[in-house]
Amino acid sequence: MAGAQFGKETSARGEWVRQANRFTRRITADGSSGFPAERGRYRLVVSLACPWAHRAVIVRRLLGLEEVLSLAVVDPIRDERGWRFTLDPDGRDPVLGIEYLAQAYHRTDPEFEGRVTVPSIVDTQTGEVVTNDYPNITVDLNTEWHALHRPGAPELYPAELRAEIDEVSEGIFHDVNNGVYRCGFATTQLAYEEAFTALFARLDQLTERLSTRRYLVGDTITEADIRLFTTLVRFDAVYHGHFKTNRHKLAELPVLWAYARDLYTTPGFGDTVDWDHIKRHYYVTHDNINPTRIVPLGPDLTHWYEPHGREALGGRPFGNGTAPASHA
Amino acid sequence: MAGAQFGKETSARGEWVRQANRFTRRITADGSSGFPAERGRYRLVVSLACPWAHRAVIVRRLLGLEEVLSLAVVDPIRDERGWRFTLDPDGRDPVLGIEYLAQAYHRTDPEFEGRVTVPSIVDTQTGEVVTNDYPNITVDLNTEWHALHRPGAPELYPAELRAEIDEVSEGIFHDVNNGVYRCGFATTQLAYEEAFTALFARLDQLTERLSTRRYLVGDTITEADIRLFTTLVRFDAVYHGHFKTNRHKLAELPVLWAYARDLYTTPGFGDTVDWDHIKRHYYVTHDNINPTRIVPLGPDLTHWYEPHGREALGGRPFGNGTAPASHA
Repeated sequence: MAGAQFGKETSARGEWVRQANRFTRRITADGSSGFPAERGRYRLVVSLACPWAHRAVIVRRLLGLEEVLSLAVVDPIRDERGWRFTLDPDGRDPVLGIEYLAQAYHRTDPEFEGRVTVPSIVDTQTGEVVTNDYPNITVDLNTEWHALHRPGAPELYPAELRAEIDEVSEGIFHDVNNGVYRCGFATTQLAYEEAFTALFARLDQLTERLSTRRYLVGDTITEADIRLFTTLVRFDAVYHGHFKTNRHKLAELPVLWAYARDLYTTPGFGDTVDWDHIKRHYYVTHDNINPTRIVPLGPDLTHWYEPHGREALGGRPFGNGTAPASHA
Repeated sequence: MAGAQFGKETSARGEWVRQANRFTRRITADGSSGFPAERGRYRLVVSLACPWAHRAVIVRRLLGLEEVLSLAVVDPIRDERGWRFTLDPDGRDPVLGIEYLAQAYHRTDPEFEGRVTVPSIVDTQTGEVVTNDYPNITVDLNTEWHALHRPGAPELYPAELRAEIDEVSEGIFHDVNNGVYRCGFATTQLAYEEAFTALFARLDQLTERLSTRRYLVGDTITEADIRLFTTLVRFDAVYHGHFKTNRHKLAELPVLWAYARDLYTTPGFGDTVDWDHIKRHYYVTHDNINPTRIVPLGPDLTHWYEPHGREALGGRPFGNGTAPASHA
């Protein structure tokens, strides 16, 4: 675990360099890739702690794919073999029949030696991993799975806005989504400070962008908002202390904090946040930055429900679509 | 270092149990203790990082004892032999002629095996430690050194308020001053949570007390305020993240935050704060809770100078006395 964090993925300068995603096959509408989008065939494996997986959980819910693409939730605490299905009866995923996600990786590539990651989509017909390529997983759910969306599903990645969504998302990826990890996993002061500076410069830029518009691109929720949200929602609970991203708390950045609360109280966002998994995962898993494994009791989370006032900026959260049905 | 933190001073339940202060001799006005208060005889050894030493630095300045009691400042980073005079020419205190504070300890007690602590007062005539008993060091500076105070020195420990000051300070000591250490040095989740709960319960109680009165006891600054201040000023820069005291930042607790800013901008308080020493000491010294030794760039400290509005509560900071002269 620690080896994976501070070993192979650390540069000589002490920078965290995230490994490439191993499995990059695509699920397509027409099946030309060999993996047609179809009901009941695939299993989405996530950790509710993980921001990369959280994207897919939100998109799946907003698009009403719950009955189409089943969900496997791993234990937030990895052991030396990685993500495991210890939350399921007998510690085994009931569909895939495996105890560790690593088993699906090795079934697909017996030589695989990297870090096993979520989200992964597994083909239940073969038990093989189709993809752990998180940027394309949500893009494909939005586009290639279109025929399977619920009635009223929003357009989260509309064709006419893709260039802008991709551009905004690119900066968010480097400086924010991955940037917090680059702060937390840096092993030299210089590498940390570079990541910290880039992170807050980007957050300042996003603050300016979001001070006059309700959402990042267009006037509806898009993939870009989902990608920013999954990092912001973890910011004060984990990254601020654990990863030392502490120029300010999110709660001290009024525009971003209101933006995050607006999304949090939108169906599909706050209702997919598991604070317990989030906090336990980070604080218990990363021995090299929290060797005591003590999980902080804070922060006070009640503030997430304070009025955000962002309706005044206009915008239509789901565009011509509708909100997903509430959870039971 | 780590051994000192997580070894001898840790209970079987994982609680941090601070060692007793080894040297408890008193300096007295009449010299009956063998150590008369007198100009130029003693040396106050401090770390500017340390909240216990910071008390003495503030009191010395408020009382105008700078010319009476000289000051030695140690390097904020301890090594395996403890506090060291590496900031001085040739790494040696120019008055005591020693490289490590431990040398004065061993000159006084060759058998000493505990943790060498600041503040310590050393008798320059013998090189022996008179006291490292921080609660009495400031009390004695206020009372036994009275004849040596500057003209206009405030009464920080007035006889008629001592019972109340002591009572308030007792709760502050257990739950706040030492409480943050009990959070940070806990080795079990239970010990951490008990300390965290007591800390914030006490801060909530102090919030109530300070919502209608400018200072903790009476209507002037007393020893009680100094003791609370030295922990509050370190709260967001260190304790919130490093010691996991993260229900809220101080900056999110309006009453205590305004109270702390009021004191910070009072001569003798903010001008004795060394942010660099504070941050480097904690983050670099405690391997067992920050093994990477990376020092966070945050928090943004400019907020300390925002208007606090506490003048509206009345109060006379220095009572019938005056503020100390500004630093050059």
